[in-house]
This record gives sequence, C-alpha cells and structure tokens, in this order.
Amino acid sequence: MTSDHDDGYVLALDVGGTGLKGALIGPDRRHVRYQERRPTPRAAGPDAVVEGVLGFAHELYETGRDRYGAPPLAAGVIFPGIVDEERGTAVYAANLGWRDVPLRRLLSERLHGTDVRVGHDVRAGGLAEARLGAGARATGGRFFFVSLGTGIACAISTGDGRMETGAHGGAGELGHIVVRPGGEKCGCGQHGCLETLASAAAVTRAWAVAGGDPTATAADAARAVDAGDPAALAVWDTAVDALADGLLTGISLLDPELVIIGGGLGEAGETLLTPLRAALTRKATFQRLPDLVPAALGDAAGSLGAGLLAWDAVTAAGAGALPHAPKGRSHDRH
Amino acid sequence: MTSDHDDGYVLALDVGGTGLKGALIGPDRRHVRYQERRPTPRAAGPDAVVEGVLGFAHELYETGRDRYGAPPLAAGVIFPGIVDEERGTAVYAANLGWRDVPLRRLLSERLHGTDVRVGHDVRAGGLAEARLGAGARATGGRFFFVSLGTGIACAISTGDGRMETGAHGGAGELGHIVVRPGGEKCGCGQHGCLETLASAAAVTRAWAVAGGDPTATAADAARAVDAGDPAALAVWDTAVDALADGLLTGISLLDPELVIIGGGLGEAGETLLTPLRAALTRKATFQRLPDLVPAALGDAAGSLGAGLLAWDAVTAAGAGALPHAPKGRSHDRH
Repeated sequence: MTSDHDDGYVLALDVGGTGLKGALIGPDRRHVRYQERRPTPRAAGPDAVVEGVLGFAHELYETGRDRYGAPPLAAGVIFPGIVDEERGTAVYAANLGWRDVPLRRLLSERLHGTDVRVGHDVRAGGLAEARLGAGARATGGRFFFVSLGTGIACAISTGDGRMETGAHGGAGELGHIVVRPGGEKCGCGQHGCLETLASAAAVTRAWAVAGGDPTATAADAARAVDAGDPAALAVWDTAVDALADGLLTGISLLDPELVIIGGGLGEAGETLLTPLRAALTRKATFQRLPDLVPAALGDAAGSLGAGLLAWDAVTAAGAGALPHAPKGRSHDRH
Repeated sequence: MTSDHDDGYVLALDVGGTGLKGALIGPDRRHVRYQERRPTPRAAGPDAVVEGVLGFAHELYETGRDRYGAPPLAAGVIFPGIVDEERGTAVYAANLGWRDVPLRRLLSERLHGTDVRVGHDVRAGGLAEARLGAGARATGGRFFFVSLGTGIACAISTGDGRMETGAHGGAGELGHIVVRPGGEKCGCGQHGCLETLASAAAVTRAWAVAGGDPTATAADAARAVDAGDPAALAVWDTAVDALADGLLTGISLLDPELVIIGGGLGEAGETLLTPLRAALTRKATFQRLPDLVPAALGDAAGSLGAGLLAWDAVTAAGAGALPHAPKGRSHDRH
C-alpha cells in the first residue's frame, strides 16, 4: 500500500519546555513528510508560549497546503502536564506556565476549523511506542513507557490499547514516587522523589558536582561510566538503584509485561539497562520481572504520538459516518 | 423484577487462609439465598485444602439441588494469590500451600460439568464493590479497593469495568510497596513493605506489644484509639502514616477518583479514615486526592464477587447463543 499524497496528512505538534517540534505525517502513521523545530518562547511568558504554538501551527498548516494542495485532515498537539483530553484543555503545565488554556479551541480557530486533539506528551509517546515501536513486544499490551528527561514520567498501558489517563488526567507520575523518604526536596514539594535521583537532569547535576564540569551532560556521564570512571560509576549507581526501586513499586502494583525506557537518559542504552536489570533482579522477591528494553522511536515518539491522536480523530470521524465501525479500531474510541 | 427461583442461582466459594465461605446467589447478584462456612484444613497440607474445597463445593451443589430442584447455573471460586483466570488455575497461593492447581477443571469435574470461573479474592471483592457497593461513587470507574487484612492487597480498576490483573495475574500488590527502605523484614523477603506496618496483622502485633495483651485484636486497638489511649494512638499513627505513603504512591501512578478501604482494619471506619484523610492532605503536593470511603459490602464482598464471576459466565454463555449481546453487558467480556 502506498502512502499517496491523495490519502492526506495530519499536523503534529510536540510542545516542550525548551523546544517546539512540528511535523506533517502521512496515513502510514510512521512517515514524517516534513518537520521543523523552533525554541519555546518561555522567557516571554505563558501567553507568548500559547501565541508561539498557534503561530507555528499556522505556518505548518500553510506549508502543508502549499506542498500538498490541501489542508491537514486533523491536528494533534501534546505537552507535558495535566491534560483534559475530553475538553481539549491544558489544565496545568508547570514548564510552560499554562493553567486552563483551551488549546483545542484556540488551535482549531487558528487552523480554520481543523479538528484538533490535545494529549499528554509522554502518553502520546507511549501510544507511538505501543503501535509503531517497542510496545509490539508486549503481546498482552501491558507496559510502561518511562521517559527519563528533565523530569521522569511514565505512560501506563493496562492492555486495552490506550494509555491510562487517570480520573483527572494525572496518571503516570512515576517521577514523584518517594523512593528515599526524607531525601532531597523535589520541585513538587515532596522529599526523596525518584525524579531527584534518576532523571537526566539529576544525573547531569550529580555528575557536574562529581566531575567538576558544570557543562557536562547525562551523555557525558554515560561515556565516563563506559570508560570506568569511579566517580561516574558512583553517580550512575545512585540513579540506577533509585530507578530500580521506583520501577519495582510500579511492577508490584501493575505487573506489566514490558518496560520501555526512553528520554535523554534512556539514550545511554545498555549502559543504563544492564545495571538496571541486575538491580531489579537483586531487589525483586515475589515479583515477576518484565522485559526491559530501550525505546525504539527515540526523539520522534512524541511527534508520531501527536500524529496518532490526529489520525485517530480522522478514523473516528470516518467510522462515525458508517453504519458499523471497523472492529480493529474499536479500542480507539474508549 | 422478582428474583424468582426459576431464574436460577450460582454457587460462590471464597477460599481464605483460615476459612471457607460458600454461598448460593440469585440473579439479582446481591441476594445470598444460602450460606455456610467452615475452617480451611490448612494444617493437613495443600492437597487436603484442595479436597476440602472440592468436598464443600459438592455439598453446596447438593444443597442447591435439593432446595431449588436444579443444579447451579455456574460456580465462581476465589482465593488469595496468583491466579491464571484464563486457564482457571491457582498458580501460587502462599497461605494455602498451592502451586499450579487446575482448580477450574477439578471443580467442574466434581460439580458434574458445571461451568466454573476462578478469580482473585480481592479483585473479586473489588468487582463486587464496583457493581454493588461503594464503587458506584466512582462515576468514571477509576478506583482502588484496598483490603487491610492479614496482608494488604488492592484491586485496581482503570475505568473499563474490569479489575486489572497484570500480565501474570500479579497486579495489586500494594502491601509490598516499600514505604520504609531498610525497615522490618517482610514475609516476601523485602524490607519495609507497607504490609509490615499497616495490615490488620501488623497493627494487632504492634498493639499486643504496646498494650501487653497478646490476645488483643486490631478492633481492640481501634477501640483504645477511640478511648484516647496514648500507646494505641502511637501504634495507629505508625500504621496511618505508612498507609498514607503507600496510597499516595498509588495515587501518583494511577490518579484514581475513589479509594475504598475494606478488610478487618477497614472495619474501624472513621477511626481509620479520618486520620488517613488528614495524613494524605498533609503529604500530597501536586496530587489530586481521591475520595476515601469505607467498603459497603464488608465481609460479603468476596462471596458476592465470586458470584459475579459465575453470573458473568452465565451471561456470556447466553450472549454467545444470540446474534447480538445485550449492550449493557459488553464490558463483562473483556
């Protein structure tokens, strides 16, 4: 089957604390036809970020229309924070300064009435890994997609093809499991959260202190671990130990078949996964341990996930016009 | 609508570490027509427990046939441990000494070919609370049913009418979340599990030590708390503090709308729930707290849940024979 331009395309927007990623994605869901990035104008305040997103989306819309002679069939936009997917609003996004932003309405107006879907960045990434990436290894569909970035978040799937949102859009806050009671104060106000010990940002901070280089990154720390640097190994061990404790808690509660590790720190691959598997094996008693694998889609998971939200809207609109929805899509409408 | 004897009944068996509860339940699902209890012959070994369950089930079968002139339409049996609901086997049950017991086949043979469903005791209790009890307060269906008994277990529902089993039947082990790293050794081999601090058994042990009465129960401790006994308050505070930490972890991961507290310690009602709500409010930072309510079905949740498993089998068999299943039951067949 060809992904002919006649089959249309969708607009995908991944809004992060530092950058905006835009993409136009074809009907095979995994084919990014066009992409563009720009910085998030965070310093200019929350309203400027909203305007930046709307303006960028509109430029992508015009780019698509110029290239393919038609507007996008739908648009998907994702961000980190509390999302009300039903109403299409950004309830709260600390990194963007957003509170109760009616994102779907604003974007749809700016995009001349295009159907817009709003989602959570890590849940969208999990959806993409589930359908297009490493999630295919969880035959029963029960997995965690853990993003180790500036913070730590987790998309949880309990086997029905969707990512769990929780009652108020707040599910998946693995980074705020307290693994070291009375430990370092977290940005959230609790003490000893997993995020203070095992996020890419936490490892970067700890390695900068241990290595004395304030410009070093988590990737530098991973390279130093590979080179056998004892200070780097100590930093790594602290992160791995905390991460194993946090994951084991999630495993005790939900018994997933697979854990997919992504985000900046996830790019360390086996440098992270090998000691993490060993720590889990050492700590587990009755728990059946899931397979632990790297994310397959890397940096593109978010954009592809935003594209899936948009394509699902297209499919649902099509299905709604038919007397019988295609069986294989029924889980999309939960 | 009357629940006429002509509409049939099912056989429900709740197998616990100390007692077996048998019941015959009518088509309204909540009407227990007949019930009987006997001790679990645990001292005689795992095979004797299996034989005890089979013999008891057969007596209930004959009682039903004598009373109502017909055999049960189906049977449901539940127990604490790892359950393979698909294959109908008891994979592992520490309290019963069971390992890989083909419970569905054995029971079906003993009950002259009756359709048998096998389930997890706390998940079945959660299902009963969801459909017949306190779960009706969670309009989106996202809740925890926490049983504070000899151990601590939790049924988790993520909103689609079923209780999450996990990939290997192991979901819901809230009692084995480590809340006090390096704390008391748990029966599971880990240290500082929630179960070592906040189960009915843990409170009973702590209160026996504090009060000097080795025959005291968790209910005695609750009464002493109500009377303002300082030693009892100290025991209670330790349990409440640990329970709040464990629940907050579950809330961060899954964002439920409702937490239902049951089991022996749950019978303390507001003596437990009032300080627990206060501890959660004190500890939570970004989390939206769920409503915290007592279980509505008490001791009967397990039997009613086993009955629901059996009635669902009856409904599924009926639906399978029809061109269209009744819409309201579709979630039963996940």
